[in-house]
Amino acid sequence: MSIKLYDLVGKDHSRPFSPHCWKVKMALAHKGLSFETIPTPFTAIPAVEEGASKIIPVIRDGDTIVSDSFAIALYLEHTYPHRPTLFGGEGGEAMARFIERWSFLTVHPFIATSALMDIYERLKPVDQAHFRKTREARFNKPLEEVPVGRDNRLETFRANLAPLRTMLGDQPFIGGATPLFCDYIVFGALQWARVISPYGFLAGDDPVDAWFQRCLQLHEGLGASVPAAA
Amino acid sequence: MSIKLYDLVGKDHSRPFSPHCWKVKMALAHKGLSFETIPTPFTAIPAVEEGASKIIPVIRDGDTIVSDSFAIALYLEHTYPHRPTLFGGEGGEAMARFIERWSFLTVHPFIATSALMDIYERLKPVDQAHFRKTREARFNKPLEEVPVGRDNRLETFRANLAPLRTMLGDQPFIGGATPLFCDYIVFGALQWARVISPYGFLAGDDPVDAWFQRCLQLHEGLGASVPAAA
Repeated sequence: MSIKLYDLVGKDHSRPFSPHCWKVKMALAHKGLSFETIPTPFTAIPAVEEGASKIIPVIRDGDTIVSDSFAIALYLEHTYPHRPTLFGGEGGEAMARFIERWSFLTVHPFIATSALMDIYERLKPVDQAHFRKTREARFNKPLEEVPVGRDNRLETFRANLAPLRTMLGDQPFIGGATPLFCDYIVFGALQWARVISPYGFLAGDDPVDAWFQRCLQLHEGLGASVPAAA
Repeated sequence: MSIKLYDLVGKDHSRPFSPHCWKVKMALAHKGLSFETIPTPFTAIPAVEEGASKIIPVIRDGDTIVSDSFAIALYLEHTYPHRPTLFGGEGGEAMARFIERWSFLTVHPFIATSALMDIYERLKPVDQAHFRKTREARFNKPLEEVPVGRDNRLETFRANLAPLRTMLGDQPFIGGATPLFCDYIVFGALQWARVISPYGFLAGDDPVDAWFQRCLQLHEGLGASVPAAA
């Protein structure tokens, strides 16, 4: 029986965009597990698995329900230990937490603010209303004002990727010679940007972009199967 | 036969300060390997092991000479696989590279510039001359001007530690429940600051400082055995 993944979508169900759901899709594919995605708009999240979680991703694997992308990755690692590892050992499980924090604090904020209207425009009206209300409360300003000045912050965003960029001079993936969940953590953020926004977050000559392109081709091109936003 | 470690010192041989040498000392202690340190001023580095390396740390283990702290940690891990692991598996070896890059690009620059005169003042005259020449070339300004304005940059330095700070809410060490080499990477930088400079880099109520204090007590208080700079 395949695993069910509740996957965040807007108007177009073929363009799921949540960074955290992308992490889980890559993790499921990495483990070689069959899964089906259930397109889930923002306002449908409270009804997922009878209110199992306030956030998605949520997976159902038989009778087991797990939410939170990192918890799901750990669940998959320990439930399917004989399939390809997502962490490469206990040290990797711990250090992936650091990379998650780095990604969340360094990569996410600029995308979340810069792509805010791009996300909004790709939602159904009922989800737009929810999104406007929750995001205006979070940013304490009208939705339309949040991305203003993103061009001025772009250089800093790119500069802040330096730890990843220089590390890629040593090895092709954060996980080493081959990707691990730590790669999918950062990939998820950049795939979110790619799927939801036509804005040019990465420069084409950036080694980070070369790594991102490699990740798009993994697992029979799972990431690339959704075209970039136009 | 114990391992020899060439350890960077200034005037006071009992206060070795190199961040990279501290990483190696912690790694040697973690592995439970006996080692002796050979106090090595800047201008003595070219003569270490007949010019084996332009930088220290350098270790000699029997007939094997290894330089570069990360290479030394990998050497110890693979030469002494039955002693406590420094990486917790292959994934940890790869991800520790990312943490090294993050530490080098996020933690080191502010310490290197802010503590520059503190280092200089603690060197012998012959090393001072070498240090002034190489650092003035690197920073392209007189040594005395480099730390100017450090108070204005302190808040940003502390803010940039956020990935480590928030991760410490999930687990006591970067390596998880117990420390790994990834902890020693960041510890080395902060121990460098602590040993060489009385400047207050960390706030006393910062979870990063609590973690640093835990690291100071590891391995029978190896780090704490050198008092903080006064």
